[in-house]
Order: sequence, then C-alpha cells, then structure tokens
Amino acid sequence: MKAKQKRIHVSEQGRPTAPGNNLDPWYSSYAARAAGLSASEVRALFAVASRPEVVSLAGGMPYVSALPEDLVTNAMSTVMRDEGPTALQYGSGQGVPKLREQILDVMALEGIKASASDIVVTTGSQHALELFSKLFLDPGDVVLSEGPSYVTAMVIFKSYQAEVAHVPMDDNGLIPEALRERIAQLKAEGRRLKFLYTIPTFHNPAGVTLAAERRAEILQIAQENGILVLEDNPYGLLYFNQQPPNAIRSLDEDGVVYLGTFSKTLAPGFRVGWALAPHAIREKLILANEAAILCPSSFSQMVISEYLSQADWKGQINTFRGVYKERKETMISALEEYLPGCTWTNPNGGFYVWLTLPDDLDSKAMLPRAVKELVAYTPGTAFYADGGGRQNIRLSFCYPTPEQIRVGIRRLANVVNGELDLLHTFTSSGPLTTRRSSQSFNAPPPNMS
Amino acid sequence: MKAKQKRIHVSEQGRPTAPGNNLDPWYSSYAARAAGLSASEVRALFAVASRPEVVSLAGGMPYVSALPEDLVTNAMSTVMRDEGPTALQYGSGQGVPKLREQILDVMALEGIKASASDIVVTTGSQHALELFSKLFLDPGDVVLSEGPSYVTAMVIFKSYQAEVAHVPMDDNGLIPEALRERIAQLKAEGRRLKFLYTIPTFHNPAGVTLAAERRAEILQIAQENGILVLEDNPYGLLYFNQQPPNAIRSLDEDGVVYLGTFSKTLAPGFRVGWALAPHAIREKLILANEAAILCPSSFSQMVISEYLSQADWKGQINTFRGVYKERKETMISALEEYLPGCTWTNPNGGFYVWLTLPDDLDSKAMLPRAVKELVAYTPGTAFYADGGGRQNIRLSFCYPTPEQIRVGIRRLANVVNGELDLLHTFTSSGPLTTRRSSQSFNAPPPNMS
Repeated sequence: MKAKQKRIHVSEQGRPTAPGNNLDPWYSSYAARAAGLSASEVRALFAVASRPEVVSLAGGMPYVSALPEDLVTNAMSTVMRDEGPTALQYGSGQGVPKLREQILDVMALEGIKASASDIVVTTGSQHALELFSKLFLDPGDVVLSEGPSYVTAMVIFKSYQAEVAHVPMDDNGLIPEALRERIAQLKAEGRRLKFLYTIPTFHNPAGVTLAAERRAEILQIAQENGILVLEDNPYGLLYFNQQPPNAIRSLDEDGVVYLGTFSKTLAPGFRVGWALAPHAIREKLILANEAAILCPSSFSQMVISEYLSQADWKGQINTFRGVYKERKETMISALEEYLPGCTWTNPNGGFYVWLTLPDDLDSKAMLPRAVKELVAYTPGTAFYADGGGRQNIRLSFCYPTPEQIRVGIRRLANVVNGELDLLHTFTSSGPLTTRRSSQSFNAPPPNMS
Repeated sequence: MKAKQKRIHVSEQGRPTAPGNNLDPWYSSYAARAAGLSASEVRALFAVASRPEVVSLAGGMPYVSALPEDLVTNAMSTVMRDEGPTALQYGSGQGVPKLREQILDVMALEGIKASASDIVVTTGSQHALELFSKLFLDPGDVVLSEGPSYVTAMVIFKSYQAEVAHVPMDDNGLIPEALRERIAQLKAEGRRLKFLYTIPTFHNPAGVTLAAERRAEILQIAQENGILVLEDNPYGLLYFNQQPPNAIRSLDEDGVVYLGTFSKTLAPGFRVGWALAPHAIREKLILANEAAILCPSSFSQMVISEYLSQADWKGQINTFRGVYKERKETMISALEEYLPGCTWTNPNGGFYVWLTLPDDLDSKAMLPRAVKELVAYTPGTAFYADGGGRQNIRLSFCYPTPEQIRVGIRRLANVVNGELDLLHTFTSSGPLTTRRSSQSFNAPPPNMS
C-alpha cells in the first residue's frame, strides 16, 4: 500500500505522466495531500486486538457498560415522543441551541465562562480537529505539539501537508522553556507556525497533566509569538483524586480554541463533541462544518440534551471516575509487581499509562511476540511524528476489567523478560540498566532540530 | 464578512506581512483554502424562511412527518435492548457490516451489483462528497458538473481551491456533446480535470433526469478522457410515475464513485449516507473518514439497520413517493394557473422544480420583495459557480403542504407580476417575450469558455 501513495508527477498539460497501475487505475488522480493519509499503527492493531483471547491494552474505548441503558433509552423515548419530527430533520450547522447552553454547564466545571453562541457542535471532537486544521493549515506549515501526541490528530495535520514539531514533557506536562526554544528555532528556520496543539489534562498517551502555573506561562509564550492554542480536553472531568487545574481556555478567550466531547463522559456512539472558539474563528468553523456534513445529527444532539436534562449526569461522571480509578490502580500495582525494571507515569485521571521499557528494548519490534502471548498494546512510535518512542508503550486501562488488566500486564512482563533474556544472550554487556524516572519523553526530534 | 476572507500575503519568513484586524486577530493565520468558505445564498435564506408566516419554497427538507414515529422508536428500543454497549461504542471507520449488507439491497433497486466491502458509510452523503474532494482535489483542479448544480457540493470543491466548469443540460439531462466539447476545451487550456460531478436522476436543482442512452455515452466520454464519474443519487428512489433508468454505477464499477443516503428515504436527522467506490479509492476513503471523525455513529447506523430489518421500508418509500407526487402536481397546476408567463421543468421524482422567469427579470434582485410578500425561494444564481441563473428560481415542493404550495405560488405570481409592471413602466419595449421551453439551462460560463 505504501508505494501506491507516492505521488506521480502531473504534467503541465493536466495529463498524468504515468498511467494508473494495475491495482489502482486512479493512482495518478489523487491530490498531493492524499499521500499523507496512511493507516496508523493503532488502526492496524485494532484488528489483531479484537480477538477475544487477546487482552487489549491498546484501544481508547470508554467502558460504556458502566452507563445504565435506561438512562439513554428514556432520553430517546422522550425525544421521539415530544420532538420526533425535529429530531429526524436537518438542523443548524452550528448545533442545537439548547444543547449548546447545556455544554456551558459542562465546561463551567473546568472554570470556563463562555457564550453558547461561540460553541460549534461537531461529529465528535475529532471532527472539530479536522475542521480547524482545514481552516488553518497550508502545506509546509508547522504544528507544535507535545511529544508524544495523539495519533489521529497528527494524521489530520499530515493530511493537510503540515509537519508536527514535538516539544518535550516532564511529569508536569509540556516544558515551557522547551516550547520557547522550539519556537525560536523554527522561526529562525523561516517556518510558519500556526498553532500549538495540546492535551493539557491526563494527556493521551503520556498520562501527565500540565501544572497550573505552566498553563499561564504557555499561554503567554503563545501570545508573544502570535500562535493559537488548540486545547483538546476529552478527559478533564475523569479525575481520580484531586481535581486538575482549570482549562487553559479559562485564562483567555481570544487565543484559545477549546475542544470538548461527550465520548468519554457519556458515550462515543453518538459522535457528539464541540469546539469553543473566538467569534471570527467560530463563524468559519460553522461554514466548514456545513460544507462537510450540512449539520451534526439532530437526533444524537437531542438525545444527549434530553439525557443532560433528565439524568444525574454529574453522578454518572462520578461513576465513570470510580471505574477508571480502580482500573488505573490495578494497572499500577500490576506494573509494580510484574515489571519492576520499567518506569511509568501514574496518572490522576484519564485512560492511559505511558510505560518506558528497559534500555535497548524496542516496543514496536516486540509487538508480534506480545500478540503471540495474547496481549496487545500500542507502541510508542505511533505517537511521534519523527520516529521517537521506540522504548515506550501506551497502556490503556479504560476498557479491560481489573482482572484482565492484571492478566495483560503479567503477559506483557513475560514478553519483556523474554526480550531481555534474548538481548542478554546476544550481548555480553552485563546487567541492563533501567531508569526509574523519565524527565523527558523525547529528545528534540532528529529531523526537526 | 466578505472583505475578511481576502487572503493576506504571508512572507517567506512565515510572519504575516499584515497584522490581524480588530474583528479577527487571527485574520492572517488562516489557510489559503479558508478564503473559499463563504456562506451560501441558500444558507442566508434559511434564516428568513424559517419565520412561520413565510411559505418557504426554498429548503430541501424532506417531509419526515410522513414517517410513523413508532417505526423509529421500535428500532431504537430493539437496538438498546439487544446491543446497547455496541451501539454506544466506537465502531469501524468503514461502517457497520450488517448495514453495509443492507445497503446492497437498497442499491439493487437501481440496478447496482456490488460488494459490501466496497461501501464506506459516511455522515450523510455530504461527508462522502467532502472526503472524496479532499482525496482528489489539488488547488487549480477543475471539476466538471451540470450547470446548474448542487450548491453545497460546489462549496466543497471551492474549499479545496478547485474550480467548477459547468456543462449545460436539456430536458434529458447533461448534454453529451457539450461535455465532450467542454473537456476538449479545458484540456486545450492545460487544465487538470479530476472528475465529473453529476446528479443524473431528479437533478437538484433542475428536476430533470439523464436519459438512459446518455448514461452510457457520458460514461464512455469520461473513460476516454481518464475522468472519474462521481454519481450523487439522493433522490433516485423517489419517482412518481415510471421508474427512472438504472444508476450510472450499474454500467461500470471501475470508473464511478456512487453516493447514496438515507436522508431522503428515511430521515436526515441520523446523518447516514454512503459511498460505493472502486477498491483502491474505497481504502483511501476509509482512511480519510477515520482521520475526520474516527468512525460514523454506531448508534445511528444500528438504528437504521434495525429499521431496515423490522419495517416495510419499501412500503415507506412508496408512502414518501405519494406525498411528493401530490405536492409536485399541486405545484405544477398552481404554476399553470398563476404564472403562465414563466416556464418550468416537470420532474418525475425528487424535490425540485426549476423555474425560468420572463426575460429581463432577476430572481436574486426580486427576492427581498418576495420575502415581503411572505414567500421564499432559492435564486438560480446559487446553483452556478459563474454568475449564471439570474433568470431562474429553484422551487422546492418537498416540505410545504399542498395548500401552502398553492399559497406560495400565488404570492410568487404577485411578485413576478409586480416586477413586470415595474419593468413595463420604466421601459417602453412593448409586451415581454416569454419562453415556454428551455433547451439549455446555461450558456457556457463567461469566465471558463
């Protein structure tokens, strides 16, 4: 497949200089940007990990079974009884007004004050990422993001022919000084910087949270450099102990586009998320949304709106918190028991632990052996645009039960120990060093520094 | 707003040469393609036409009230009872397998034989248009389409910085010889032609249907010139008398990407449509779909799948046919009674009549007076990329009741007669000529010929 995505030169006369190949007669017709669309490593994994005998620590599926079905069924029945024809019809490209008002209540929990008129409802927050990227990214632009970063955001940036420049994190999230240096360096190279894409709270995949004092500092750096902040916050309400700092958007409304979603606090099957944006950007997001899909699903939006009206949604989020907290704690204690030679982050919320393997192990090369041992994970390389992350693994504790998590980590330990034995046999470098604390998830990427 | 969409030059150093303006501090950060996203004339109209005292002949909303609500409620209840956690979860980027199998049955009604593995479920067929355009359109490319054509398809093409080249129609649809000439001319100018976008059956807005013998001829012209055919078929099953010719896709599976939707035969509120594409293109559409939204709504897809299993969906389409046939006949008889000085198409299906005003009348200029007379329509200019259509109006008979349609056409006649009186007063050119038969909807557009 990869070879097919190479772009064939199209002549001035508009006729391809090479014919279609025998696998794809339209090979020479694709846009240049289509070359940036390739299957992610995570995607290929899903096929493998879906076999029932495999314990998957790979996906990011929320545990929707913790949601009482009658809460959803009751909301649906009310919508169809009271407003059926409206729910079945086209709606506004911006989204249902009542739901946008209710979204204000959700965001208020993280310190955000806003107007419902600045919210655009999207087909999951993923589509907000896509629409925002379509509006802002020219070929050759640079997007700043944490390293590692969310896979499918990077797929979008690449599909608009932009490059990702990673900025390292530590246990308190993105490092402000590293951001400052990175921006200076890229500007010196004459690169166009459009925005900083960040997941400040319970980062995917790193599991860390940006400290409160850093939020203001990073915002200031962005402002000084004329760079928008795209704050992606799917997990913020799913904290385990103390509440995380308020959203970056709570500090500034002109320089931040905030993305939220009901996929993790309710259910992803409805595909309802949103963007909160400064007025002018919001207007363009609505136009882009209308061009792409005419309007988000009236039905999905109205069912969620009714659920928020009828049900104890804050109590339900609390239930989810309890489920994920137990799973996270199970994972950490299993790691301590079975993988003492590794290091990991210990998140206060969200879905993911970021594991660092002992030196010289390669998470991607190790994956086939892991699948043979009936455990699946996402190799760290999936979360870097630059080949970083070979020594890392993202472990998801959101979907498997605590029992499965323990079994999965035990299997993973067998794989890691097997790899270490192998390494030991073929090298005679003495005992392997392990690092218990990672200060930074990646060195400056080789192709960008 | 229009001035704000003008692109500011970005210097080689990556710093905008002009600062943001006071309305939008991010003015200089947008991608070049964002300039192509502007509010359509149809969109602006929706706001006006939604006032209850206005009879709207403008929108394209299906009459969902003709759908018994319990059919939907029963399907939803079954889904939640039997497969709740699956419906609430993320799903495949290609769409639910069972639904894709059922879509084969829908398409078989128009002569299409295909494999479910070549179907990609999308967020309405609108999103299939968007994804296909993202995959194929480079800046400066040309899309061939009927003149007039579907507004929001043209908005998408423009948003990817492509141009639309119109090809005229007559009462039998797109004129093959005109297509041949247009292609030759554009190729001679060195333009890159990527695909022909066509709505062959019950055209939006023209109401005409491509004759059977022309379907093969147009396919052959496309093949000879290495151009894909993008067949958009939302209305094909909504015929009034004899069944229309089979879909173009029924004649060729390698050169046609076919778009279908449940928005008109069931309900648009679910946002479920699909693309049927040759293997290699289908693979890329799945990747583009996953990047844009991760997956289409599991919930919407499973409710529709259950509806197709439980309900007499063919009988329901028959009900819709009856509703729209009555409305179309009411509209035609009202036009005959109230607007004998105009000409119009008389569709055998779909949602729209295309009206041609007497010479020298301007449908766009006339619109404010129409709204004052409490009738709304879409001016013909909305459906041309080149300023054509001033003498035309799209009249929708899908949503208003027959009584409203008669009232609306009577009001429209008052407006037209008022304009004619005015014209008469200010010119002394004697009786106005009217044309009863339109052979072609547009001359070759001035900026492309």
